[in-house]
Amino acid sequence: MYELGVVYRNIVRTDAQLAHKLGVFGASTVHEALGRVGLMKTWMRPIYPGAQVSGTAVTVLLQPGDNWMLHVVAEQIRPGDIVVAACTTDNTDGFFGDLLATSFQARGARGLVIDGGCRDVKTLTEMRFPVWSRAISSKGTVKATLGSVNIPVVCAGALVHPGDVIVADDDGVVCVPRALAAATLEAAVKREANEGEKRAKLGSGVLGLDMYNMRGPLEKAGLRYID
Amino acid sequence: MYELGVVYRNIVRTDAQLAHKLGVFGASTVHEALGRVGLMKTWMRPIYPGAQVSGTAVTVLLQPGDNWMLHVVAEQIRPGDIVVAACTTDNTDGFFGDLLATSFQARGARGLVIDGGCRDVKTLTEMRFPVWSRAISSKGTVKATLGSVNIPVVCAGALVHPGDVIVADDDGVVCVPRALAAATLEAAVKREANEGEKRAKLGSGVLGLDMYNMRGPLEKAGLRYID
Amino acid sequence: MYELGVVYRNIVRTDAQLAHKLGVFGASTVHEALGRVGLMKTWMRPIYPGAQVSGTAVTVLLQPGDNWMLHVVAEQIRPGDIVVAACTTDNTDGFFGDLLATSFQARGARGLVIDGGCRDVKTLTEMRFPVWSRAISSKGTVKATLGSVNIPVVCAGALVHPGDVIVADDDGVVCVPRALAAATLEAAVKREANEGEKRAKLGSGVLGLDMYNMRGPLEKAGLRYID
Amino acid sequence: MYELGVVYRNIVRTDAQLAHKLGVFGASTVHEALGRVGLMKTWMRPIYPGAQVSGTAVTVLLQPGDNWMLHVVAEQIRPGDIVVAACTTDNTDGFFGDLLATSFQARGARGLVIDGGCRDVKTLTEMRFPVWSRAISSKGTVKATLGSVNIPVVCAGALVHPGDVIVADDDGVVCVPRALAAATLEAAVKREANEGEKRAKLGSGVLGLDMYNMRGPLEKAGLRYID
Amino acid sequence: MYELGVVYRNIVRTDAQLAHKLGVFGASTVHEALGRVGLMKTWMRPIYPGAQVSGTAVTVLLQPGDNWMLHVVAEQIRPGDIVVAACTTDNTDGFFGDLLATSFQARGARGLVIDGGCRDVKTLTEMRFPVWSRAISSKGTVKATLGSVNIPVVCAGALVHPGDVIVADDDGVVCVPRALAAATLEAAVKREANEGEKRAKLGSGVLGLDMYNMRGPLEKAGLRYID
Amino acid sequence: MYELGVVYRNIVRTDAQLAHKLGVFGASTVHEALGRVGLMKTWMRPIYPGAQVSGTAVTVLLQPGDNWMLHVVAEQIRPGDIVVAACTTDNTDGFFGDLLATSFQARGARGLVIDGGCRDVKTLTEMRFPVWSRAISSKGTVKATLGSVNIPVVCAGALVHPGDVIVADDDGVVCVPRALAAATLEAAVKREANEGEKRAKLGSGVLGLDMYNMRGPLEKAGLRYID
Repeated sequence: MYELGVVYRNIVRTDAQLAHKLGVFGASTVHEALGRVGLMKTWMRPIYPGAQVSGTAVTVLLQPGDNWMLHVVAEQIRPGDIVVAACTTDNTDGFFGDLLATSFQARGARGLVIDGGCRDVKTLTEMRFPVWSRAISSKGTVKATLGSVNIPVVCAGALVHPGDVIVADDDGVVCVPRALAAATLEAAVKREANEGEKRAKLGSGVLGLDMYNMRGPLEKAGLRYID
Repeated sequence: MYELGVVYRNIVRTDAQLAHKLGVFGASTVHEALGRVGLMKTWMRPIYPGAQVSGTAVTVLLQPGDNWMLHVVAEQIRPGDIVVAACTTDNTDGFFGDLLATSFQARGARGLVIDGGCRDVKTLTEMRFPVWSRAISSKGTVKATLGSVNIPVVCAGALVHPGDVIVADDDGVVCVPRALAAATLEAAVKREANEGEKRAKLGSGVLGLDMYNMRGPLEKAGLRYID
Repeated sequence: MYELGVVYRNIVRTDAQLAHKLGVFGASTVHEALGRVGLMKTWMRPIYPGAQVSGTAVTVLLQPGDNWMLHVVAEQIRPGDIVVAACTTDNTDGFFGDLLATSFQARGARGLVIDGGCRDVKTLTEMRFPVWSRAISSKGTVKATLGSVNIPVVCAGALVHPGDVIVADDDGVVCVPRALAAATLEAAVKREANEGEKRAKLGSGVLGLDMYNMRGPLEKAGLRYID
Repeated sequence: MYELGVVYRNIVRTDAQLAHKLGVFGASTVHEALGRVGLMKTWMRPIYPGAQVSGTAVTVLLQPGDNWMLHVVAEQIRPGDIVVAACTTDNTDGFFGDLLATSFQARGARGLVIDGGCRDVKTLTEMRFPVWSRAISSKGTVKATLGSVNIPVVCAGALVHPGDVIVADDDGVVCVPRALAAATLEAAVKREANEGEKRAKLGSGVLGLDMYNMRGPLEKAGLRYID
Repeated sequence: MYELGVVYRNIVRTDAQLAHKLGVFGASTVHEALGRVGLMKTWMRPIYPGAQVSGTAVTVLLQPGDNWMLHVVAEQIRPGDIVVAACTTDNTDGFFGDLLATSFQARGARGLVIDGGCRDVKTLTEMRFPVWSRAISSKGTVKATLGSVNIPVVCAGALVHPGDVIVADDDGVVCVPRALAAATLEAAVKREANEGEKRAKLGSGVLGLDMYNMRGPLEKAGLRYID
Repeated sequence: MYELGVVYRNIVRTDAQLAHKLGVFGASTVHEALGRVGLMKTWMRPIYPGAQVSGTAVTVLLQPGDNWMLHVVAEQIRPGDIVVAACTTDNTDGFFGDLLATSFQARGARGLVIDGGCRDVKTLTEMRFPVWSRAISSKGTVKATLGSVNIPVVCAGALVHPGDVIVADDDGVVCVPRALAAATLEAAVKREANEGEKRAKLGSGVLGLDMYNMRGPLEKAGLRYID
């Protein structure tokens, strides 16, 4: 976060299987499994609905109005990665478009998470290259100032280290630290285990009040019913 | 609005037929019929396009980051209701997801209007359970602090009493007070009566300037044409 | 921008063929071809995805909460025009709906760009009448105060003169001054000429670093690779 | 809130002494005494620091860009009142300036709370006429469309009935319903009673953890200390 | 607005006396005198209260995160000028600080209006060099990409040509086109002429309703008084 | 950031002298010395102007609408510390007021940086206890849910580890990692060394264009002067 003008080439990625499996649960379940932390701000929205991906983070720190480092990060992408692009300041410029997407896709990237703007969204949608961004903007960028690649970054309020797992879908983007990935997967599995049963009960008309035994605690907290 | 920790069980709902009929006209027409008041803020957006619903309001006041009362309000839902959730402060957390939606739907709710965040939007879309919310967010919530159910609330800038009619579609969310529902329906009917004729005229090239006799008033207001 | 209560009837439009051709390239390419200027703010979003239009601007300056001048501008529309509506202050009211759209469409308008609110978006989507707006809102407006038609306006941060070319798509809205339209088209054509080749290269795994010869400049700027 | 074009002349005001006494405690204490509800949104800021006032509400509903009703409400002001101005939509125009302030002050108003813009702030500051507003703006307004006076309004998210008590200071604006004013005052008095003692203890280094006996509940909630 | 990389050295400034006299009236009166147009967005705030200046505009178009052109514009400043800095995109970086202010002040600039960030505000306040900005930010900028000097710019929503008059105070920033400066001054003088008399009347308790003869028009518009 | 319900009691603080010396330079110079990184978002504003402090960070992670952990962190404060409070979601509630400030001040805290709301600002100003916050709000909070103390946090976009140096003034808030504190101080000293000389030159009318030798690079970049 504090080192500019550097590219770390050797990063330790979370196991690919682990990263993949977390993605199956989606951002909301993974966020819960992680303890209700690690979520990016709600201004990060997918450019088209329905995408659900996970992958290992390669990170890039951009300068406002400058997408030079997106070309640098492209070389560091391996199949299964998701590029996470932060910026040294709030900026909505269109750092990323269809040409870069073609390159990222060719390198095996599963998507882009960028706390900045994105353009060519129609083409990106046709390519099915998912992007979560702060804005959509035609605004072009220059290539003049260095940032860094594969340093820790704060992206949309979440700390991301290279190699962490990114899980993104319509609900948002969550970052799972590499060291917590296995435990988070385990927690997610447990969490989902009885979801089907719960859903069936609730669907049959059983109330959460009863299913979760909330009536006692609510009464203790002082809840009063008035007819 | 000022009473916390209470649940009113017996509320007077607007007649179901009346509530249903208002929904046919959609939010914009109903808002006009009501006198251009009663509309929620434009930050309230549907989680998927195309939904158009109406129903009687059951209200709930939430605390930030806490969805305990959504379980309490579930029990008060009757078929044809729309849950209106306000919060004591601005908060985008994901108070509501697919399990609660299953429960609400089983109770007969037609939708949710929440001045807060919503999650599991992909599943909610598949369930066709419409939600109008301030944000989409994976952020989980706790169950620790009481709010209230079926008290008057201010939701996204609009005052909603339990039993009022809610009309919501792609244009937004409007609340029709119970006492004004019949008159509003009547006004909406009148308003729509000659819409077809107007549309035909405008479609044939007749100008609003002429159809609405605006040329005189515009001239009187001082409008000048310059060639 | 400074003259209120006037309607200019005779404006000089950019050549229709020129306006049409620019539209084929879309907002992002045209914005680049124009020198990375002339773009409206990113808060201007299309009411439905996928529309891509261009046309000659007829402009209108509105007063907050007042859509009177939209009826006045309707008469000035010629086939191939796009209406550009600015407001004297920030306002999200629903100035424009399906009746006005019927009228605009009958007059030959290709779309509306409005730094304000829009309503009846479901119907507008069915009509395939594209609108780029600041907000979607049921809020009705009055017809009480004069603005102007076909004066220069600042719309969402971009200066628009009557007769300029507007290019709008999912990426945003760009305004090309009439005097620069031909040169901009030429630049856009050049820009796109080798896009196919570039895309093929990038798709085959060639890096932008190499294709654009960036390695030297990056090294000169001090970029360091760390293994 | 739903009735336009009316002025209620006879409103029942909270007792003046009661209104005055509540003001002594300031917005934060009164808000707590009321049960942590009734607060306006944080976008409402004083035009100069240090003002602390309370009074009985006379309400006015404005239309965007139109300050006609501020002249109408002036006549309804009695000494000790605070004018509460809501708007049918979000609008930052400069509805209120030094001339209206002179008039309001002459009528005995203690201040203005307006969910809109304010201007002439330098002069208002010199006059010591306090205003809490959504924005500061030179933007002028017209006098063309009716709103209402002394109907219930939602102002910056808070429901205000004519005659309610408004308490405003640097922390914000709170509305105390007339029926709850006496009880709220009582609660505020109690709340403040031992504040001096608490402050002395905390100032001497005693921790809130001990003073409020939080260590047990924290431990029970699972808090772990790590050396 | 469309020409990058150029510096116009010879601009036609509004007469210095005229520019000075307009400043005496302040932003709100001048904005009204101009016909309620020409105002910058309300996000432009002074870094300290109480400044009231006017001057002739020298303009500069910046690139995001880049203050190179502020050094270029410094050379074009003449005594009595106000620098108006726009940016090709929304950016809050700290483009301007005490060193540049020292330079600008030495050249005779009366202030800066910047649709971007400003820093060293404590020192600027001590220097009494007034700045109206979009934000206050320590964020440093680079010197890498060209913009332009003394081209027309859109700054915070207002079109500014070099040589126009800028009037700025606590209420905001207004731009008066050179060609309209004399007429605007005249209108401002007229507007202020009877302000003293009006203020005296209102201060004595006369209502605006009577002073402006509003009762008839209000009745005609349908206003009803209810006792 | 990922561990909830824990309090780290033993943290390694940056040397107190080092922390103090950095504060003398202020946020903008330190931010530059650090390489233009490490700055919090511009929404963090001081509750009164003129404060300039530095200190070692003790961190706390809050839950929305819940200030329980502020009481927990109080015990961990040592003289010379600045409390840095992050929240698991965006929240403007008034987490902090005069009683907590009394406690913090008694423990030796030099200030508070909170990505949330603050209240009792009048009293805090009188106490000269500086707070940088996201908002000012009377909104009260509960004490129900655990966060953590002295874990790494992301506060207003900046990563803060316990023991880092915080420098805050009217320009904003910057965090200097402990490991970089000495080098940053050195860089700040160098940076300021010739500021006096520069200021004198610029004050005498020498242009930055000449002082920084920018004319060559500008010409090379293509800048054209037009008479």
